[in-house]
Amino acid sequence: MHGLIGKMLAAAGKRDEVIAILLESTAKMPGCLSYVIAIDPKEADAIWITEVWDSKESHAASLTLPEVKAAIAKARPMIAGFGDYHTTEPVGGVGISQG
Amino acid sequence: MHGLIGKMLAAAGKRDEVIAILLESTAKMPGCLSYVIAIDPKEADAIWITEVWDSKESHAASLTLPEVKAAIAKARPMIAGFGDYHTTEPVGGVGISQG
Repeated sequence: MHGLIGKMLAAAGKRDEVIAILLESTAKMPGCLSYVIAIDPKEADAIWITEVWDSKESHAASLTLPEVKAAIAKARPMIAGFGDYHTTEPVGGVGISQG
Repeated sequence: MHGLIGKMLAAAGKRDEVIAILLESTAKMPGCLSYVIAIDPKEADAIWITEVWDSKESHAASLTLPEVKAAIAKARPMIAGFGDYHTTEPVGGVGISQG
Protein backbone atom coordinates (compact mmCIF):
# COMPACT_ATOMS: atom_id res chain seq x y z
CA MET A 1 0.00 0.00 0.00
CA HIS A 2 0.98 3.61 -0.49
CA GLY A 3 0.25 6.35 2.03
CA LEU A 4 0.45 10.10 2.30
CA ILE A 5 0.27 12.42 5.30
CA GLY A 6 0.18 16.07 4.37
CA LYS A 7 -0.78 19.51 5.57
CA MET A 8 -2.29 21.97 3.14
CA LEU A 9 -2.58 25.64 4.00
CA ALA A 10 -5.64 27.43 2.70
CA ALA A 11 -5.69 31.13 1.95
CA ALA A 12 -7.09 33.11 4.88
CA GLY A 13 -10.77 32.39 5.32
CA LYS A 14 -10.90 29.82 2.53
CA ARG A 15 -10.31 26.63 4.47
CA ASP A 16 -13.90 25.45 4.52
CA GLU A 17 -14.38 26.13 0.81
CA VAL A 18 -11.27 24.09 0.03
CA ILE A 19 -12.50 21.28 2.29
CA ALA A 20 -15.88 21.21 0.53
CA ILE A 21 -14.12 20.81 -2.83
CA LEU A 22 -11.87 18.07 -1.43
CA LEU A 23 -14.76 16.13 0.11
CA GLU A 24 -16.74 16.18 -3.11
CA SER A 25 -13.92 15.42 -5.53
CA THR A 26 -12.24 12.60 -3.60
CA ALA A 27 -15.24 10.45 -2.73
CA LYS A 28 -14.83 7.93 -5.57
CA MET A 29 -11.23 7.43 -6.62
CA PRO A 30 -10.23 3.94 -7.82
CA GLY A 31 -7.68 2.33 -5.52
CA CYS A 32 -8.24 4.86 -2.73
CA LEU A 33 -8.65 2.89 0.52
CA SER A 34 -8.75 5.83 2.92
CA TYR A 35 -8.78 9.61 2.49
CA VAL A 36 -9.38 11.53 5.71
CA ILE A 37 -9.72 15.30 5.73
CA ALA A 38 -9.24 17.10 9.05
CA ILE A 39 -8.89 20.57 10.43
CA ASP A 40 -6.21 21.59 12.92
CA PRO A 41 -7.52 23.02 16.18
CA LYS A 42 -4.33 25.05 16.57
CA GLU A 43 -4.01 26.49 13.06
CA ALA A 44 -7.03 28.13 11.45
CA ASP A 45 -6.01 27.72 7.81
CA ALA A 46 -4.53 24.23 7.95
CA ILE A 47 -6.06 21.10 6.43
CA TRP A 48 -4.58 17.70 7.25
CA ILE A 49 -5.02 15.01 4.63
CA THR A 50 -4.13 11.39 5.33
CA GLU A 51 -4.42 8.91 2.49
CA VAL A 52 -4.09 5.17 1.88
CA TRP A 53 -3.91 3.81 -1.66
CA ASP A 54 -3.61 0.26 -2.94
CA SER A 55 -0.56 1.38 -4.93
CA LYS A 56 1.52 4.41 -5.93
CA GLU A 57 0.14 3.99 -9.42
CA SER A 58 -3.47 4.40 -8.23
CA HIS A 59 -2.53 7.64 -6.50
CA ALA A 60 -0.77 8.94 -9.60
CA ALA A 61 -3.73 7.92 -11.77
CA SER A 62 -6.16 9.76 -9.48
CA LEU A 63 -4.50 13.05 -10.40
CA THR A 64 -5.56 12.50 -14.00
CA LEU A 65 -9.26 11.88 -13.23
CA PRO A 66 -11.42 14.63 -14.79
CA GLU A 67 -13.21 15.38 -11.51
CA VAL A 68 -9.94 15.58 -9.60
CA LYS A 69 -8.32 17.81 -12.22
CA ALA A 70 -11.36 20.10 -12.14
CA ALA A 71 -11.23 20.21 -8.34
CA ILE A 72 -7.52 21.08 -8.34
CA ALA A 73 -8.17 23.91 -10.80
CA LYS A 74 -11.05 25.20 -8.67
CA ALA A 75 -9.19 24.96 -5.37
CA ARG A 76 -5.78 26.20 -6.50
CA PRO A 77 -6.49 29.95 -6.05
CA MET A 78 -7.58 29.20 -2.48
CA ILE A 79 -4.45 27.21 -1.54
CA ALA A 80 -1.67 29.26 0.07
CA GLY A 81 0.87 26.46 0.36
CA PHE A 82 1.80 23.15 1.87
CA GLY A 83 3.39 22.14 5.16
CA ASP A 84 4.34 18.68 6.36
CA TYR A 85 4.45 16.03 3.67
CA HIS A 86 5.32 12.40 4.34
CA THR A 87 5.08 9.35 2.14
CA THR A 88 4.35 6.14 4.03
CA GLU A 89 3.76 2.45 3.43
CA PRO A 90 0.65 1.44 5.35
CA VAL A 91 0.76 -2.10 6.67
CA GLY A 92 -2.74 -2.46 8.08
CA GLY A 93 -5.22 -1.26 10.63
CA VAL A 94 -8.82 -0.18 10.95
CA GLY A 95 -10.68 1.75 8.24
CA ILE A 96 -8.73 0.63 5.22
CA SER A 97 -11.62 -0.21 2.95
CA GLN A 98 -11.06 -2.39 -0.03
CA GLY A 99 -11.99 0.10 -2.73
CA MET B 1 -14.60 13.59 15.46
CA HIS B 2 -11.17 13.48 17.04
CA GLY B 3 -7.99 12.67 15.14
CA LEU B 4 -4.36 11.95 15.82
CA ILE B 5 -1.34 11.86 13.53
CA GLY B 6 1.79 10.61 15.21
CA LYS B 7 5.18 9.12 14.62
CA MET B 8 6.51 6.51 16.99
CA LEU B 9 10.15 5.48 16.97
CA ALA B 10 10.88 1.85 17.69
CA ALA B 11 14.11 0.67 19.22
CA ALA B 12 16.58 -0.46 16.57
CA GLY B 13 15.36 -3.63 14.89
CA LYS B 14 12.09 -3.74 16.86
CA ARG B 15 9.77 -1.92 14.47
CA ASP B 16 8.01 -4.97 13.11
CA GLU B 17 7.49 -6.44 16.58
CA VAL B 18 5.91 -3.19 17.73
CA ILE B 19 3.72 -3.10 14.63
CA ALA B 20 2.51 -6.65 15.25
CA ILE B 21 1.48 -5.68 18.78
CA LEU B 22 -0.27 -2.54 17.51
CA LEU B 23 -2.17 -4.39 14.80
CA GLU B 24 -3.43 -7.00 17.20
CA SER B 25 -4.34 -4.72 20.10
CA THR B 26 -6.11 -1.98 18.16
CA ALA B 27 -8.42 -4.03 15.97
CA LYS B 28 -11.53 -3.66 18.13
CA MET B 29 -11.65 -0.40 20.03
CA PRO B 30 -15.09 1.16 20.64
CA GLY B 31 -15.46 4.50 18.87
CA CYS B 32 -12.36 3.99 16.72
CA LEU B 33 -13.33 4.85 13.13
CA SER B 34 -9.89 4.55 11.56
CA TYR B 35 -6.48 3.45 12.81
CA VAL B 36 -3.85 3.14 10.11
CA ILE B 37 -0.36 1.85 10.86
CA ALA B 38 2.38 2.61 8.34
CA ILE B 39 6.12 2.37 7.97
CA ASP B 40 8.30 5.20 6.69
CA PRO B 41 10.35 4.35 3.61
CA LYS B 42 12.96 6.92 4.67
CA GLU B 43 13.32 6.03 8.35
CA ALA B 44 13.84 2.40 9.32
CA ASP B 45 12.59 2.61 12.92
CA ALA B 46 9.62 4.93 12.40
CA ILE B 47 5.96 3.96 12.64
CA TRP B 48 3.29 6.41 11.51
CA ILE B 49 -0.08 6.08 13.19
CA THR B 50 -3.11 8.01 11.96
CA GLU B 51 -6.32 7.72 13.94
CA VAL B 52 -9.94 8.84 13.74
CA TRP B 53 -12.24 8.56 16.75
CA ASP B 54 -15.87 9.46 17.20
CA SER B 55 -14.85 11.57 20.21
CA LYS B 56 -11.92 12.50 22.44
CA GLU B 57 -13.59 10.51 25.17
CA SER B 58 -13.52 7.29 23.12
CA HIS B 59 -9.80 7.74 22.53
CA ALA B 60 -9.17 8.33 26.23
CA ALA B 61 -11.31 5.32 27.12
CA SER B 62 -9.35 3.09 24.73
CA LEU B 63 -6.24 3.59 26.82
CA THR B 64 -7.99 1.90 29.73
CA LEU B 65 -9.04 -1.23 27.79
CA PRO B 66 -7.32 -4.32 29.24
CA GLU B 67 -5.99 -5.45 25.84
CA VAL B 68 -4.64 -1.99 25.08
CA LYS B 69 -3.00 -1.66 28.50
CA ALA B 70 -1.40 -5.07 28.06
CA ALA B 71 -0.16 -4.10 24.61
CA ILE B 72 1.35 -0.85 25.90
CA ALA B 73 3.16 -2.74 28.65
CA LYS B 74 4.44 -5.29 26.12
CA ALA B 75 5.54 -2.71 23.55
CA ARG B 76 7.01 -0.11 25.89
CA PRO B 77 10.52 -1.64 26.14
CA MET B 78 10.65 -1.63 22.33
CA ILE B 79 9.65 2.03 21.92
CA ALA B 80 12.55 4.48 21.72
CA GLY B 81 10.50 7.66 21.54
CA PHE B 82 7.99 9.75 19.65
CA GLY B 83 8.30 12.24 16.83
CA ASP B 84 5.59 14.32 15.19
CA TYR B 85 2.34 14.47 17.10
CA HIS B 86 -0.71 16.38 15.90
CA THR B 87 -4.25 16.44 17.16
CA THR B 88 -6.84 17.02 14.44
CA GLU B 89 -10.59 17.29 13.97
CA PRO B 90 -11.53 15.08 11.04
CA VAL B 91 -14.46 16.40 9.03
CA GLY B 92 -15.02 13.55 6.61
CA GLY B 93 -13.62 11.49 3.79
CA VAL B 94 -13.17 7.92 2.69
CA GLY B 95 -12.50 5.05 5.10
CA ILE B 96 -14.10 6.47 8.21
CA SER B 97 -16.09 3.46 9.27
CA GLN B 98 -18.91 3.87 11.68
CA GLY B 99 -17.59 1.70 14.47
